[in-house]
Amino acid sequence: MHLLIDGYGSPSRTLWDRAHLLGFLDKYPGHLGMAKISEPTVLTHEAAQPEDSGLTGFVIIAESHISVHTFPMRNYVNIDIFSCRAFDSERVLQDIKKFFELHQVNSWVIDRGLEHYNPQNATAPSVRASTPEKGSC
Amino acid sequence: MHLLIDGYGSPSRTLWDRAHLLGFLDKYPGHLGMAKISEPTVLTHEAAQPEDSGLTGFVIIAESHISVHTFPMRNYVNIDIFSCRAFDSERVLQDIKKFFELHQVNSWVIDRGLEHYNPQNATAPSVRASTPEKGSC
Repeated sequence: MHLLIDGYGSPSRTLWDRAHLLGFLDKYPGHLGMAKISEPTVLTHEAAQPEDSGLTGFVIIAESHISVHTFPMRNYVNIDIFSCRAFDSERVLQDIKKFFELHQVNSWVIDRGLEHYNPQNATAPSVRASTPEKGSC
Repeated sequence: MHLLIDGYGSPSRTLWDRAHLLGFLDKYPGHLGMAKISEPTVLTHEAAQPEDSGLTGFVIIAESHISVHTFPMRNYVNIDIFSCRAFDSERVLQDIKKFFELHQVNSWVIDRGLEHYNPQNATAPSVRASTPEKGSC
């Protein structure tokens, strides 16, 4: 289960708060029953265009991850919570909104890895590309 | 632009090949014009259930990332290529298929961060959750 979140309206000071983000990455996996297999990392990116600058945070979970990219000058943050286990996406959305002080949230839930490869059915490699907007994935 | 790929049918030896994955994470961002801001990392995860074991690879790009989680016993791999810049998703799919020797691929393309927060329009926090299958995101 992969939850993708775009969050808007977060104060710049929150999105520049390295310790706040590190604390989230350190503790939130445990709230969801996920097992970290790395220590969380937060990097600062100073871009040529100031509005592209921000923090990037990462923690690797057992065969999954949580990522956060903040854009303080845009009051925008994107978060991915990708887990082998199902979790309560509505609860996570509420937690994320509170944590980043968000006013607007868009989100996508994608169930991944549900298909199984059967070599006997594979006659030729195939690609199925889809956009969520078209409801074809 | 966020491209999510579920790939099936990859040989176990490919999905256990740490050097192969590290090389991909090191070099592929450059092919897409992305700027790495961290060295790539590959971790091995030995799960209680062998079919849940595999490699996790990560490289942080300027305000975006590439992640790979392999499941060699399932011949399954998932890959996320998330970039601030648009890229040719069909080309990337073909590259990924070749690199991981995939027979079946499912993918999703999500354009993120396209909305802009306007504090004057924000009367109360709102959440818009959606599932791609319903075509509502």
